[in-house]
Amino acid sequence: MASTAAGQVIRCRAAVAWEAGKPLVIEEVEVAPPQAMEVRIKVLFGSLCRTDVNFWEAKGQTPLFPRIFGHEAAGIVESVGEGVADLKPGDHVLPVFTGECKECRHCKSQESNMCDLLRINTDRGVMLNDGKTRFSINGKPIYHFVGTSTFSEYTVVHVGCVVKINPEAPLDKICVLSCGISTGLGATLNVAKPKKGSSVAVFGLGAVGLAAAEGARIAGASRIIGVDLNPKRFEEAKKFGVTEFVNPKDYDKPVQEVIAEMTDGGVDRSVECTGNISAMISAFECVHDGWGVAVLVGVPNKDVVFKTHPINILNGRTLKGTFFGNYKPRSDLPSVVEKYMNKELELEKFITHEVTFSEINKAFDYMLARDGLRCIIRMDG
Amino acid sequence: MASTAAGQVIRCRAAVAWEAGKPLVIEEVEVAPPQAMEVRIKVLFGSLCRTDVNFWEAKGQTPLFPRIFGHEAAGIVESVGEGVADLKPGDHVLPVFTGECKECRHCKSQESNMCDLLRINTDRGVMLNDGKTRFSINGKPIYHFVGTSTFSEYTVVHVGCVVKINPEAPLDKICVLSCGISTGLGATLNVAKPKKGSSVAVFGLGAVGLAAAEGARIAGASRIIGVDLNPKRFEEAKKFGVTEFVNPKDYDKPVQEVIAEMTDGGVDRSVECTGNISAMISAFECVHDGWGVAVLVGVPNKDVVFKTHPINILNGRTLKGTFFGNYKPRSDLPSVVEKYMNKELELEKFITHEVTFSEINKAFDYMLARDGLRCIIRMDG
Repeated sequence: MASTAAGQVIRCRAAVAWEAGKPLVIEEVEVAPPQAMEVRIKVLFGSLCRTDVNFWEAKGQTPLFPRIFGHEAAGIVESVGEGVADLKPGDHVLPVFTGECKECRHCKSQESNMCDLLRINTDRGVMLNDGKTRFSINGKPIYHFVGTSTFSEYTVVHVGCVVKINPEAPLDKICVLSCGISTGLGATLNVAKPKKGSSVAVFGLGAVGLAAAEGARIAGASRIIGVDLNPKRFEEAKKFGVTEFVNPKDYDKPVQEVIAEMTDGGVDRSVECTGNISAMISAFECVHDGWGVAVLVGVPNKDVVFKTHPINILNGRTLKGTFFGNYKPRSDLPSVVEKYMNKELELEKFITHEVTFSEINKAFDYMLARDGLRCIIRMDG
Repeated sequence: MASTAAGQVIRCRAAVAWEAGKPLVIEEVEVAPPQAMEVRIKVLFGSLCRTDVNFWEAKGQTPLFPRIFGHEAAGIVESVGEGVADLKPGDHVLPVFTGECKECRHCKSQESNMCDLLRINTDRGVMLNDGKTRFSINGKPIYHFVGTSTFSEYTVVHVGCVVKINPEAPLDKICVLSCGISTGLGATLNVAKPKKGSSVAVFGLGAVGLAAAEGARIAGASRIIGVDLNPKRFEEAKKFGVTEFVNPKDYDKPVQEVIAEMTDGGVDRSVECTGNISAMISAFECVHDGWGVAVLVGVPNKDVVFKTHPINILNGRTLKGTFFGNYKPRSDLPSVVEKYMNKELELEKFITHEVTFSEINKAFDYMLARDGLRCIIRMDG
């Protein structure tokens, strides 16, 4: 694919958040060419993740506006900056909110995916190379979000945050792998690692939790216990392999005790996807002594404290935290795309809505109404 | 070896604790023959572990006296009860305070060593088969301790708590493997699993902590940071591979911050062997984000709470508890004996004192004075 705009500013549509909580406005923006180690991507499909909404609401945060949100997307490389050797125009890619520089201690460790250089940074609204934005309107800078800003027809992303994928993969489906679905799936497959026939409890049956359940289904767990305060979630959760449902509101005792009674002492694995501190503690205390592993995914408020009696730890339990499902984006996400291509992983069931780019605020409405799981945003409409 | 006493009561010497905190008294006791699934062992060498002393002091516990303590020992099978197929008179064995029935879910799990049937029980002073003691003096029962009661020339132990070992192994050395040394060694080798060239912090430089350091040395850790409130421990710790020493009293800030500064963000692994709750929290928070693993070994007071900010967990850290170093006694301890036989594991440096059985109270004095690590008790003297 020839790129005629390489090295030039591209003028295109972007959904700009001018202030916290106000509907995004489709504007014409200028997108500067990629600088050293940067890639300019033509975004074709995106989806909305709760994190976009949280930072758009900007409650309890330092607001940074005007800003272009968006971090779940798929597209095609339009042009590359100096020093980019692994990507070329026309490559199919997923931009990701956290990166892999392949040089730092984390990238060199087989055990970590928390790249020192490109780890998620929600406060930074500029590119690393020059500390400036690549987006502007009439010369006024528009800030980036987590290095991706995919609510724009074109965006500029650090090469370490760009994953080259199988060009045959349908971009309108695999765009959801940029964040939430991979986070939940990887938490189960890479961190909890349930064995075939084992029992898994999943706390929170939103998209991330259902992706964790999907991971348990793929791993061959025989019991997948979904825990959620909303009983309506159970019907949908069955599609993701959830076999039993527990609503903590239905019991007078802690949910960990309920689960221990259901499972003769506790589940083999648990995955916590709500970020609620009492759910985190329950998720740890509901795993079986001797071998149980609890994995925390959900991000809590800053001022909460995780508390448990140490005997719960000493009795052979394991507590692990994970970030982005322990996937190193560039190294590992292509294989997740392949899991979809070979029908092991089912993505269609996560996609409950679709809107055109010009209707992007509808996607926010669905999320705020907790209606559905993922809303695909078609950038061409 | 022919056994002439099989099926008969044996009269022999035992060190009886008549009441809490009072010196043991060498008495002539009757040792009944082993019942179904029991083994009578002639104890040749023992050593004293802190747990014996704690239950002898009986502070904050339900006292159970008169009782025969002792759970680190090595001996020879004198006779076996009905149903014992794997052991015969003359076999060299280690009695262990926790067992392996080979039938329960824990024994069948590759991930647990917390046998449902024979897991340590410090309150029970009788044998499982008939709920009675095998020890008596003039018909008055003398209680068992953790199923081993090795401070007796003969003792009766459930077959699931008896480990058959290489008959060439010197019993006066490998007796220390029955409890503390294996606990610390296994915590590092089986649970923390440091890689060659990695950094390991060990909290508490008593026998268990030094065994954890020994494990790190064997695994090829390049930095082993010993943490203890007693600066005198450091000289001795060097023999066990400890390369650096941190005394939390020397700093105004939490020791986890001191260690993070020493190690550019945290150690790769930590092993907590004190049971002090603030040490437990420090041991968790001193491991590096992304890949750090903290292993808790020390048993805390009942009323303490483990507290940490959940972000410490979410940032890719792992917290694990372990019991008896995750060794399944019958399946795994023979290989630890082999590690000593092939000179990989050095046991001599743990042995700092030796007394005859008649002097057993001296071993208690050494322990109470925190003098040395392990005191061998020769049962023939």
